[in-house]
Amino acid sequence: MTDPSTKRSERRAKNRLEAFSDGVFAIAITLLVLEIAVPDVDGTKLLSELLHERQTFLAYFVAFMTIGAVWIEHSALVDALDHIDATFMRLNLILLLFVGILPYPTGLMAEYRYDVQGERVAVVFFGVVLLMQTVMLFVLARHAEREGLFGTDVVDERLEESRVRYQLAPSLIMYAVATVLGLVLPYVGLILFLLIAVYLAIPLHTVRRLLRRSA
Amino acid sequence: MTDPSTKRSERRAKNRLEAFSDGVFAIAITLLVLEIAVPDVDGTKLLSELLHERQTFLAYFVAFMTIGAVWIEHSALVDALDHIDATFMRLNLILLLFVGILPYPTGLMAEYRYDVQGERVAVVFFGVVLLMQTVMLFVLARHAEREGLFGTDVVDERLEESRVRYQLAPSLIMYAVATVLGLVLPYVGLILFLLIAVYLAIPLHTVRRLLRRSA
Amino acid sequence: MTDPSTKRSERRAKNRLEAFSDGVFAIAITLLVLEIAVPDVDGTKLLSELLHERQTFLAYFVAFMTIGAVWIEHSALVDALDHIDATFMRLNLILLLFVGILPYPTGLMAEYRYDVQGERVAVVFFGVVLLMQTVMLFVLARHAEREGLFGTDVVDERLEESRVRYQLAPSLIMYAVATVLGLVLPYVGLILFLLIAVYLAIPLHTVRRLLRRSA
Amino acid sequence: MTDPSTKRSERRAKNRLEAFSDGVFAIAITLLVLEIAVPDVDGTKLLSELLHERQTFLAYFVAFMTIGAVWIEHSALVDALDHIDATFMRLNLILLLFVGILPYPTGLMAEYRYDVQGERVAVVFFGVVLLMQTVMLFVLARHAEREGLFGTDVVDERLEESRVRYQLAPSLIMYAVATVLGLVLPYVGLILFLLIAVYLAIPLHTVRRLLRRSA
Repeated sequence: MTDPSTKRSERRAKNRLEAFSDGVFAIAITLLVLEIAVPDVDGTKLLSELLHERQTFLAYFVAFMTIGAVWIEHSALVDALDHIDATFMRLNLILLLFVGILPYPTGLMAEYRYDVQGERVAVVFFGVVLLMQTVMLFVLARHAEREGLFGTDVVDERLEESRVRYQLAPSLIMYAVATVLGLVLPYVGLILFLLIAVYLAIPLHTVRRLLRRSA
Repeated sequence: MTDPSTKRSERRAKNRLEAFSDGVFAIAITLLVLEIAVPDVDGTKLLSELLHERQTFLAYFVAFMTIGAVWIEHSALVDALDHIDATFMRLNLILLLFVGILPYPTGLMAEYRYDVQGERVAVVFFGVVLLMQTVMLFVLARHAEREGLFGTDVVDERLEESRVRYQLAPSLIMYAVATVLGLVLPYVGLILFLLIAVYLAIPLHTVRRLLRRSA
Repeated sequence: MTDPSTKRSERRAKNRLEAFSDGVFAIAITLLVLEIAVPDVDGTKLLSELLHERQTFLAYFVAFMTIGAVWIEHSALVDALDHIDATFMRLNLILLLFVGILPYPTGLMAEYRYDVQGERVAVVFFGVVLLMQTVMLFVLARHAEREGLFGTDVVDERLEESRVRYQLAPSLIMYAVATVLGLVLPYVGLILFLLIAVYLAIPLHTVRRLLRRSA
Repeated sequence: MTDPSTKRSERRAKNRLEAFSDGVFAIAITLLVLEIAVPDVDGTKLLSELLHERQTFLAYFVAFMTIGAVWIEHSALVDALDHIDATFMRLNLILLLFVGILPYPTGLMAEYRYDVQGERVAVVFFGVVLLMQTVMLFVLARHAEREGLFGTDVVDERLEESRVRYQLAPSLIMYAVATVLGLVLPYVGLILFLLIAVYLAIPLHTVRRLLRRSA
């Protein structure tokens, strides 16, 4: 199971998993733009129409930053691995399924932006997909820890694993809260998704350093 | 034909073939989401509409898992190769043609989900495309064996090749059976495609180990 | 200009040019499927409708094989290079522009399949785009030769370059002939594009060997 | 922070950032073609209709060359780096957001080509997106300089950085001017965007050498 030839093969598998995953993340994030419909109004009304559609652009922004944040988490996780096994490849596929479907609830949010009942369904759908993405990242990290897939150049495996878990646990809770809130107040749910994406995307220590500099 | 410079070039060709194939697989799998139409109903009916469209989501899931499973098989096959030749590149292109067209029958299945006559045509179309993908994987494996493209770090070439053949033969037979059944009972065919995708995607030995653990 | 650091940088540039080009080729080839419209007919008529639309599938097949063949030529050309320069990157961008636009005339051919006047325009548009792709491959090969970009592990640079030119010249002439013919007889032009794609995609020496074996 | 294991990890992160960015650039540039609508006219009028739509093709060309030019700048910048940090990854995501959204204003320009009021809004939208792309490239270059991310094989870091800044500053000013002009004369703005893209895409020293040769 762990002879050198198998190990080499599992490392090459890791490279192709990265290439394939990067592809799916990059395509899903770029396809989002197709969900913003080009308005069909008189030219004199185009500007007000675009300003009116700001919720569509907000949904685009939230979805873009979320896929970006999940990609960064995925990058960090896979990078810390020494090699991958067959189960990791399959679990990764389930994660990509929830990444690939995100343009759909984004389209729903854009379509039902003026309809609070529809928006409620769209926001909860969006939230459940985000929740499942985070759950799958968690499952991947746990599987990697159990099967000893983390590399030895990670100084302390246990430490690395708990770091991943520590980072994912708050987003899991936040997405659950935002989804439940979105069930009652769809717009508040959307704003919360935005805040989570910004929280995940902005490296806190950089902000702290910038604040210190300007002080 | 086999001087070092040619060999090096054929290994680089293998890398680009992987990159191009990964790209096509990743795009085809992510384009599937565009085949799920955003419903245009009153917001109060959106949830029931989405639940009603569960067959569309099922078709998406089946197509996603199938492309994923074929990608995993393709990965394993190409990884076992030492280098590729011009014919392998062309045969691979035919495989990618059947991968790239899959969103079309997936769209047909979504469009004709309420129309058993149309669903029949859609399911058979879908099945024939899956069958052709498996046939092409088979043809690629056979060509690689004949031309001695398998690497020497594969301990026993013959063994590796027969492993690939062993894995592909059951899916070939299963896809043929599911397609013929889909001709009579389209919905049963779709469920069979799902089962095959799950069978291909779930690594059996992991399941066995999990069962043993929980026992 | 040719100090080691610059050379290393130009080789890295070659790798990113390959990755970016492979991406554009893979996306263009996979987007083609979106040009085949899902028919909106009664389920009982779906099969006859699909058979009726065979020209659409033919256009898809021709476009797919053509992009595939150009990708193979592009692969072989870039692989033979040792490094690239700034001009090569820009010329490559023009080639990719003609690759990326191919889904458009493919969509035109599908849309105007029953209208001989429209088909004429579509086929000529398609032919001019193919012609420009081949011209740009030619220009890239010529630029690489002039600027000494070919690698030293290519045993004879001049030989390699003339091989590329030898392979491209017939397709240039064939595309020109097919485009002019398509102006008069659109369907004949389409069939010719198919034959050229098959000619480019099938490695002749393999066919010859297979014929010899079966004899 | 700078122990060898962290450095290795940050170099691998650079590779995945390149792969992901190349993916987004390649997809955005190839999706542009979907914004050109296939005309639905009588076949006899198709040619005149296509010639009539030349502004749509111009918008496609401008958008394609612009994304291509930004990709080339991005390539050169990232190539000069030794490693990347967490902030660079996030800032890069913001750049990709403005790359990924470009098909939308391109679609606006195509849709409102006959409506000077709408065209005005579309051209300014397009210009602001281009401006933001250049601003983000600037921010990335500045961040890389401040944090010492540039490689040591870049002979003079300070020189390299100022070269990047020198190249970006004119395009920043040009995009600002073109956007303001587009507010008054939309068509002039579009032509200016074209000229900037051509200026960025054509390597000036090659042109100079060609002129000298023909002289």
